[in-house]
Amino acid sequence: MKFSIERAALLKAVSQAQSVVERRNTIPILANVLIEAEGSDASFRATDLDIEVVDKAAAQVERAGATTVSATTLHEIVRKLPDGALISLTADSAAGRLTVEAGRSNFSLATLPREDFPVMATSEYQSNFKAPAPVLRRLFDKSKFAISTEETRYYLNGVYMHISDSEGSKVLRCVATDGHRLARIDAPMPEGAAEMPGVIVPRKTVGELRKLLDDDDMEIAVSVSETKIRFATPDITLTSKVIDGTFPDYTRVIPQGNTRKMEVDASDFARAVDRVATVSSERSRAVKLQLDEDRLVLSVNAPDSGAAEEELVVAYADERLEIGFNAKYLLEIASQVDRENAVFLFNSSGDPTLMREGNDMSAVYVVMPMRV
Amino acid sequence: MKFSIERAALLKAVSQAQSVVERRNTIPILANVLIEAEGSDASFRATDLDIEVVDKAAAQVERAGATTVSATTLHEIVRKLPDGALISLTADSAAGRLTVEAGRSNFSLATLPREDFPVMATSEYQSNFKAPAPVLRRLFDKSKFAISTEETRYYLNGVYMHISDSEGSKVLRCVATDGHRLARIDAPMPEGAAEMPGVIVPRKTVGELRKLLDDDDMEIAVSVSETKIRFATPDITLTSKVIDGTFPDYTRVIPQGNTRKMEVDASDFARAVDRVATVSSERSRAVKLQLDEDRLVLSVNAPDSGAAEEELVVAYADERLEIGFNAKYLLEIASQVDRENAVFLFNSSGDPTLMREGNDMSAVYVVMPMRV
Repeated sequence: MKFSIERAALLKAVSQAQSVVERRNTIPILANVLIEAEGSDASFRATDLDIEVVDKAAAQVERAGATTVSATTLHEIVRKLPDGALISLTADSAAGRLTVEAGRSNFSLATLPREDFPVMATSEYQSNFKAPAPVLRRLFDKSKFAISTEETRYYLNGVYMHISDSEGSKVLRCVATDGHRLARIDAPMPEGAAEMPGVIVPRKTVGELRKLLDDDDMEIAVSVSETKIRFATPDITLTSKVIDGTFPDYTRVIPQGNTRKMEVDASDFARAVDRVATVSSERSRAVKLQLDEDRLVLSVNAPDSGAAEEELVVAYADERLEIGFNAKYLLEIASQVDRENAVFLFNSSGDPTLMREGNDMSAVYVVMPMRV
Repeated sequence: MKFSIERAALLKAVSQAQSVVERRNTIPILANVLIEAEGSDASFRATDLDIEVVDKAAAQVERAGATTVSATTLHEIVRKLPDGALISLTADSAAGRLTVEAGRSNFSLATLPREDFPVMATSEYQSNFKAPAPVLRRLFDKSKFAISTEETRYYLNGVYMHISDSEGSKVLRCVATDGHRLARIDAPMPEGAAEMPGVIVPRKTVGELRKLLDDDDMEIAVSVSETKIRFATPDITLTSKVIDGTFPDYTRVIPQGNTRKMEVDASDFARAVDRVATVSSERSRAVKLQLDEDRLVLSVNAPDSGAAEEELVVAYADERLEIGFNAKYLLEIASQVDRENAVFLFNSSGDPTLMREGNDMSAVYVVMPMRV
């Protein structure tokens, strides 16, 4: 194998690859990226056995072939080479070396045989559709904060993507929850997605996927089976196993009868919560909300460190209410609001509270109260 | 005690205080800042028993007095309050509380009595002089990287500041070394500094001092005794114990007879060292320099991960030389060079190497070689 490639193209491809590679590997080959050169392309493949990413880039291929080399070392080298450099990669399979040359720099890296590299088995996908990058970005960005980190509840360690009904029309829906809060985000159902099986996309996949979604004009090809999901742009293909479990029936968690409505400027609210939480104890982080007509008092009372109180003008016309929340959860849902005021719908101080942006029902959050 | 103060002034004062406070304190009062209000000033004092910082700020004092309160909590609160806020602080010593008010925010913080706060004893200083902030900044910034972190060699855990001779005139000199590399930085001796005892300024003090030195127009008042050093601006006074030990005779370490001179662009050199070091093993980080006429080849050979080589054009007219260094040490001294080319003076591959900027003798670095 021998080919030349622009530093920028190589850096992009190798960055994506090395980010999939786990830092600690007991299987040496999993630390490597599989480089394959043929025709006018070089491809860079990395895997952790659950996720596989393949990044293709234009290259001047002199001799087709393939080898594998440490993803982090190659990434570090390319990152440190000067911008605009033309980089040539030459594999010497007899010596088990890959030579990387650019200008007066010359690197010789240990390789492992391509045959040892575990390429993910290809699958039959039941559903194939296309979705604009900004649509997928919104679905995952607004839901991922609620993913559970509890390993015992592995079926909550991802975003549940599925087809559902909302106000009479079909939607592509992402839901995440950790039992304390829940996010439910909808987008219009893309053409061809109706038969998509519901899948739980693992947290790490959500993170890797995010890098494919920055370009507003990009259409992402999505393929879904019962066991795998694939996201593809013309250059990058990300394939991931989905979590083998059943996502709980979240619909029962979303309160329907909450009528006590408070409307508040989301960033004023977040800043006030952040301030009063300063004195809260590390453990509880509890913040009390006291609601009176058009008036919200946020307060924290931590016997050891002190007390804090802040008043906000809000729109509220219901009867007096006191309710407590974890400050972190309040901050996280308030920071999801990007266009309008935050609308909170309360029931009693013991019931889950619903939050949405204005009257937009396509992004709904639920947060459980806590005793204060 | 009751006074009002601008948020920006309070933030600046409390930032400096909370940075001196150690994160983990077995003595509760050491987590607190002593606030004293009198006349038209409020002062904020913090200590870790080795360093004391006092920051004064203009305030509208309604009732003189003093109290102590958690430095980090107060800092967090002030940081989160909106820019431009006027903050009022009221101590209620009967209740043991400090009330912090700004706009619609209200905090009540636990206090400890001012009597319990350990104020550093005042000292007689043998030497008092003034030095411009940029002069002190250069002395410490260019030497501190070489401070040892080995606790057993406590006398190397700081910068040795003293008066010395250089080319026939007196200089204020800062030296730091960890046994592997050494930095020796000189500045013209300030008026009144001739009798200054040599002192070892601890690493943490060097870090805290740095915050006083950002303003190019500031004159710093320096006071030195055998046991303490004090740096003062009109607003901030930083007093520190010095390290009770004898700094080794560093002059013997600085090679006098090195004649093999190599001149190289410092940033080209640093980038090349950084690149070839990518393949070096975590443990050794050894880089080999091979010098021929006007040509430097940097190389690394790590049996497990690979090899790297890079060639640089340099000015070198002496005989062929091979010498090895720790890549980190080479990078750190190369990054001290800010105006001219780096000039390296070698002797043999087993001898310490000297580095300076062009022909400037006021900043000299020594680095020990290693076997490669």
